[in-house]
Amino acid sequence: MSITYDMAAFYEGLVAHRLILPSGVPGVFGRGPMYERVMAGLNHALDQIALNDGYETIHHPPVLPRQLLEKVNYLEAFPHLCGSIHSFMGNGLAALRLAEAARNHEPWGEMLVQSDVVMSPAACYSIYPLFKGTLPADGRTVGVNNWVYRHEPSAEPTRMMAFRMREFVRFGSAEHVVPWREMWLNRFKALFDTLQLPAHAEVASDPFFGRAGKLMAASQIEQKLKFELMVPINSLESPTALVSFNYHQSKFGELFDIQQADGEVAHTACIGIGMERITMGLFKHLGFDPRAWPEAARRTLWTDGQP
Amino acid sequence: MSITYDMAAFYEGLVAHRLILPSGVPGVFGRGPMYERVMAGLNHALDQIALNDGYETIHHPPVLPRQLLEKVNYLEAFPHLCGSIHSFMGNGLAALRLAEAARNHEPWGEMLVQSDVVMSPAACYSIYPLFKGTLPADGRTVGVNNWVYRHEPSAEPTRMMAFRMREFVRFGSAEHVVPWREMWLNRFKALFDTLQLPAHAEVASDPFFGRAGKLMAASQIEQKLKFELMVPINSLESPTALVSFNYHQSKFGELFDIQQADGEVAHTACIGIGMERITMGLFKHLGFDPRAWPEAARRTLWTDGQP
Repeated sequence: MSITYDMAAFYEGLVAHRLILPSGVPGVFGRGPMYERVMAGLNHALDQIALNDGYETIHHPPVLPRQLLEKVNYLEAFPHLCGSIHSFMGNGLAALRLAEAARNHEPWGEMLVQSDVVMSPAACYSIYPLFKGTLPADGRTVGVNNWVYRHEPSAEPTRMMAFRMREFVRFGSAEHVVPWREMWLNRFKALFDTLQLPAHAEVASDPFFGRAGKLMAASQIEQKLKFELMVPINSLESPTALVSFNYHQSKFGELFDIQQADGEVAHTACIGIGMERITMGLFKHLGFDPRAWPEAARRTLWTDGQP
Repeated sequence: MSITYDMAAFYEGLVAHRLILPSGVPGVFGRGPMYERVMAGLNHALDQIALNDGYETIHHPPVLPRQLLEKVNYLEAFPHLCGSIHSFMGNGLAALRLAEAARNHEPWGEMLVQSDVVMSPAACYSIYPLFKGTLPADGRTVGVNNWVYRHEPSAEPTRMMAFRMREFVRFGSAEHVVPWREMWLNRFKALFDTLQLPAHAEVASDPFFGRAGKLMAASQIEQKLKFELMVPINSLESPTALVSFNYHQSKFGELFDIQQADGEVAHTACIGIGMERITMGLFKHLGFDPRAWPEAARRTLWTDGQP
């Protein structure tokens, strides 16, 4: 199949095949049954790949404590992406004014108060506080699979405000976590070969905010702390990052008081798997009808080879 | 097994068995692997019950357009439960002030602006706009399965701020939707019998806000628009609503311009299934170890009878 890149046509195809159902707000849409079958297939394929990794998966809701977001200094690096949940804590008269403003589609945000929770901007943040203390001798591996939120409305179908992110997180020494990150990069290269997704790896940086962010990004690239596996979806020139491979050094070990068995501060790494972007990539490269996908891809995603 | 009711002891048991992992904020916690196995089992049991219902399931993210919340008049009825997402839209200098406030755990909510999205407070709201127009002659049934959010921090383990709500929604004439609601009430009574959950049905009302809310609640009860299936979890005296059976009359048909095949405005009903509360109810009544649950319950939840 020869691929041409036309973002608007791709979006319209997703809608026409009832894979996504627009809500009217860019980056927020419903998912139809076949989209979810592909998502389930991807989760199955990852379960198989990690079958003998001895990890435990912990699921979190799409929100986390505001204090945790503050603790990981998220607002220093990514203020533009945060989503804070504000609620109404007033009395009857204020409630009448609130309802009237809402009825007239007038602003009502200033009648609310910031609550104790924020949108979870990354699936793994909620995990670190749970593992304060000393790690087993061979470290620890944890799976996570959550909805995350980033305030970046966009016409790109692959840039959602709310999306599911599966991650694997490894805790231990640098020797535990750095080769493990490399292993996952190779696992994903093999998986994407089987799924016929044309991918290449790049050294990358996070989307840090502002001028200070440029320095943070340069340092991250210099130290090769982040790789991304890129697949063209919206255009050939600007491929989309589907999976990221992140080495945090001792950042979270220090913040959350996590030690290696020998008492040294723990190092961590995480594999951030853009489940929705991989799903989108499959529709782009294999077509809108999963029943017609190549057999090797179907057998990888579904036990009986059928979506 | 003789059941005693002690809310604090039940919560501690859930934590001790790594079924839930507290975050520090009431109503927000991680879910361990066995909790998720029970959740998956419940979804499987519901799939089996509805196997021949001819419905399509649509998944939505945990957020929805603010305009949609305004359109369903949510702020008139439930202002105290809403969660509005606010984001930072400022420049570099403002970002520095934001980061500093966050670093010092000082208020930073007023530096944000209300965005176009809010937390989804009910799984079915996102569905109605998708079905504007004329229904098939026998109406339509839609499944939904989303994270929802309600601002009601509480020490009760069954009262979460973020939780999963599966729903079935029926569109059609009153004759399509009212007996269908009754059918689902009977289906759940049978399911809860098999699962050994001691349930009883009650006419109920929504938790409307304030003095005007009292009138709305009384009218809802008078017209028997809402039933709930109640199971004691936190205490014997105040059982918990696990499933609600709601008849909306023509409210959503009018709001979203949905007609029956004969041109009359559509009636709708929804079955709101508190997936997390049923999971909690099973741990309360069958014990913290699903491997030791009665065989009939295990066979209903998992094909091979094993969690």
